[in-house]
Amino acid sequence: MVELRKDPISSGWVIVNKNRDLNCFSKTEIHLHDDKRCPFCSGNEKLTPPQILAYDKSKRKTNDKDWNIRVIPNNKPILAIEGSLLKKAEGIFDKMNGIGAHEIIIETPSHNKSAHSFTVEEYSQIILTVQERIRDLKNDLRFEYILVFKNYGINAGETISHSHLQLVAMPVIPKTVKEEILSGFKYFEYKERCLFCDIISQEISSGTRIITENDSFIAFVPFASRYPFEVWILPKEHSSDFRTINDYRLITEFSSINTSILRRLHKVLDNPSYNLFLHSLPLKENFMQHYHWHVEIIPQIVKTTGFELGTGLYVNPILPEESAKFLREAE
Amino acid sequence: MVELRKDPISSGWVIVNKNRDLNCFSKTEIHLHDDKRCPFCSGNEKLTPPQILAYDKSKRKTNDKDWNIRVIPNNKPILAIEGSLLKKAEGIFDKMNGIGAHEIIIETPSHNKSAHSFTVEEYSQIILTVQERIRDLKNDLRFEYILVFKNYGINAGETISHSHLQLVAMPVIPKTVKEEILSGFKYFEYKERCLFCDIISQEISSGTRIITENDSFIAFVPFASRYPFEVWILPKEHSSDFRTINDYRLITEFSSINTSILRRLHKVLDNPSYNLFLHSLPLKENFMQHYHWHVEIIPQIVKTTGFELGTGLYVNPILPEESAKFLREAE
Repeated sequence: MVELRKDPISSGWVIVNKNRDLNCFSKTEIHLHDDKRCPFCSGNEKLTPPQILAYDKSKRKTNDKDWNIRVIPNNKPILAIEGSLLKKAEGIFDKMNGIGAHEIIIETPSHNKSAHSFTVEEYSQIILTVQERIRDLKNDLRFEYILVFKNYGINAGETISHSHLQLVAMPVIPKTVKEEILSGFKYFEYKERCLFCDIISQEISSGTRIITENDSFIAFVPFASRYPFEVWILPKEHSSDFRTINDYRLITEFSSINTSILRRLHKVLDNPSYNLFLHSLPLKENFMQHYHWHVEIIPQIVKTTGFELGTGLYVNPILPEESAKFLREAE
Repeated sequence: MVELRKDPISSGWVIVNKNRDLNCFSKTEIHLHDDKRCPFCSGNEKLTPPQILAYDKSKRKTNDKDWNIRVIPNNKPILAIEGSLLKKAEGIFDKMNGIGAHEIIIETPSHNKSAHSFTVEEYSQIILTVQERIRDLKNDLRFEYILVFKNYGINAGETISHSHLQLVAMPVIPKTVKEEILSGFKYFEYKERCLFCDIISQEISSGTRIITENDSFIAFVPFASRYPFEVWILPKEHSSDFRTINDYRLITEFSSINTSILRRLHKVLDNPSYNLFLHSLPLKENFMQHYHWHVEIIPQIVKTTGFELGTGLYVNPILPEESAKFLREAE
């Protein structure tokens, strides 16, 4: 039983999924450091569901053990792939079946390699694979949005320590993305400029929160960072769709700035837990002048409490300009 | 330096406070189980800033060691009490000084007593004290909202294990409260009824998510609970302001349902960490026909990950009706 229920008070959706394990605080962490038992390791393919896609080092599709990147369905998915949405009311409440796709992108065959140590070439191949999965899943008209994300380390909710990304296709536009789009829309209506582009201009002219940049991308610590050492990566030129980075130069520059940020975080915070996710426009849109795709990276080094839960206000104990300085000087 | 910064993308405020400790995951937990060193224990009053207020068992104000409830300023407050707001722009961004009050309500002089073991009489005295502090702080016109909350247990961000509530008065209306008020407003505009009152009616007629109720209050697991075993407590009759429970009968019934829920959670989940907070109307409002005050209690037993951060969608591995059944049958 997987169900999507809408909270009429916060307008947010909740996925009720009885087939998921409780990712409990108290449970012994499942960290399979032994590559004999890790289902994501090369040689253990039989421990996972059949693969969706795999590439070897020469970027050729492969079915055998010489894969370099491998995409599999999650064996305990957040949302279920089979069925139709069947939206319905339950008195005052709204619900629908929990339809979606939940895939794992195993980024490397080797157990002990983490994302901060990937080369630009390795990262580029991961990006190309992500884009291929998005292109394919976009054809399923039940889906409204795809989130690509990473949980790295125990405090970020990681359960298998072999480096991987997750991808969830869902039948609703997530609340956080709706909020970003709405802010962008209101700003555009007033200024006729993209809010995100204006933020980038101001960050470039002030310089205090920039960590690094290249021809096409910029990485900075946001002015009102919710978390210490929070980092955003954005394309400098206006673009609402992640799939528009489709040539060699852009993918290389994007991979280069991503791996640079992960290396800096690893160095400054001594291998921190972090969450990383990609925000691009909803699947049924092709271009938005008021939205700007980006990556958010959130190191999980402080705990949130009843204050954050009850207010939605965050307490950041480090000045964003200081976080930026540490990260800027780290390489 | 304490500063409030507004994120133009999410419209949420962030408190940048260099004087706060990082409540780090990695830091050894500060659990002062030794009542010789606990600053909240009776006899250790010199370890805290001077008290704001204290009551003895006979509900008389007291200054000596015979206190039963004691209110003190937090010695490392989230917001600073001195100064003026000085709202200003920094280019595209908005900020102001981080002005507010942050108080600790020590609920009991004894170190080993937790909120789930309080008697109705003890809880009633705590409620009266909270109301007195709200009445007093409401006179400070710099403040727009007061959040009363509790962090119980390590996974809820507790740093001192002696039972206490926290109270933060702040110069902005928090995002979560704004969101609840806006949903209530839209619903009222359409239906001319309170959204929360309608939810209560439906919960009463279905019955499957109710845990317990008395003449004036109801406790249930919300239809779209974000967390397993999440509980809301609301007055059955429409009321937007927590301070309207001002007679003996109402305070007793409210205390009775609160302690009952905390006992049930303690029993079913084996002494879980939890966050508890109170949502009432903003300080400068006197009555809202579209808002309904309530308490939210959130057991911290599952971890949130990049999926929740990136979407604002929550994954709940337990059917709310099942959570409710466990709690209903626990007493």
